[in-house]
Amino acid sequence: MKSFDPALLDPVSMSKLMSAAVVPRPIALVTTLGLEGPNAAPFSFFNLCCADPPMLMFSMAPREGTTMKDTVRNIERVPEFVVHIVDEPNRHKMNLCSTDWPHGVDEIERAGFSTLASVKVRPPRIADCPVQLECRLEKMVKLGRKPYTMIIGEVILAHFRDGLVDEGRYYVDSARLRAMGRMEGSDMYTRLTDRFSMPRPDPVNPKGK
Amino acid sequence: MKSFDPALLDPVSMSKLMSAAVVPRPIALVTTLGLEGPNAAPFSFFNLCCADPPMLMFSMAPREGTTMKDTVRNIERVPEFVVHIVDEPNRHKMNLCSTDWPHGVDEIERAGFSTLASVKVRPPRIADCPVQLECRLEKMVKLGRKPYTMIIGEVILAHFRDGLVDEGRYYVDSARLRAMGRMEGSDMYTRLTDRFSMPRPDPVNPKGK
Repeated sequence: MKSFDPALLDPVSMSKLMSAAVVPRPIALVTTLGLEGPNAAPFSFFNLCCADPPMLMFSMAPREGTTMKDTVRNIERVPEFVVHIVDEPNRHKMNLCSTDWPHGVDEIERAGFSTLASVKVRPPRIADCPVQLECRLEKMVKLGRKPYTMIIGEVILAHFRDGLVDEGRYYVDSARLRAMGRMEGSDMYTRLTDRFSMPRPDPVNPKGK
Repeated sequence: MKSFDPALLDPVSMSKLMSAAVVPRPIALVTTLGLEGPNAAPFSFFNLCCADPPMLMFSMAPREGTTMKDTVRNIERVPEFVVHIVDEPNRHKMNLCSTDWPHGVDEIERAGFSTLASVKVRPPRIADCPVQLECRLEKMVKLGRKPYTMIIGEVILAHFRDGLVDEGRYYVDSARLRAMGRMEGSDMYTRLTDRFSMPRPDPVNPKGK
């Protein structure tokens, strides 16, 4: 084994190691409402964190003059947001939202996305995305030296594109969803085409013997 | 679009929708130290949440009499743990750790994993896993009705299997790592074999024109 001590390694190299190790990361494209209008930015320090009620988290560094910073500032002002799952056909539009646009630029429009009014929250949702989760801020947690801000939100309304959900079973077919995962480096992603089933073992007879 | 209101849908169906939408989820196999010895359990409500210092989060429901519950109780007693990234060859061993073994069963041994003493924390690490992240508890956050427990940990020492890290660039080749992602339902996973590069656009000239 090769070991790395974060206290002895520069933060940029350590961060590269960590984001290459913790893969695949789901991607949240988050819309918020600022004084100058709506904002959209993608985040991959993102996941579910509670099932009842449904809650999710995403976390970001405060980078001056960027849309990421706008996300935190906007949520501090209007504690509501919409988390979108992006499918492969919308990957380039999502990527345009990750650009460090100057403050005040409408990156949603620049990216070529269409918006739709949300039902329970003030920020708009992106009509192009197959899953749109309207959220209310539950908690903000400051972490680390910069600090990072972890946003925890409660999902108060979930929208799915027609044909995605098998309602009898509340099942979403991932082959139809076509979500993507974030991988190592600043540019690597993965499609989710190489799926397999691994049922949980029986606790009484765990090896199936 | 088809819309689902968590206030009007039963929590189990809502949870199925959410965990099928938020994909792919990275997997943490977490070792902790209990009064009766070490414990290992996998979690997919897991991600990085801070880069400096490196921190990660994972979240779980308190399920009575299970190894998941043991994880929280153990961290309350010894606020240290090791997060492992599991590769495909170890998937069945990991899966055995997800079984609801009776309290006190050494699922690490039952799964066929070998342990190794950690350097900076008391819980052992699993020698078979390609990445082993020794962590100190930073914060516990209770969420929702059951409640869920979110564990936030600071990575204080990171071990990588020989040959995984290109040290000049602190780059981990995901083709060598062979991590897996959690997908929909109780049994679906994905391999990360269908990767692609999508560089961040240039903010001055974002469409590359």
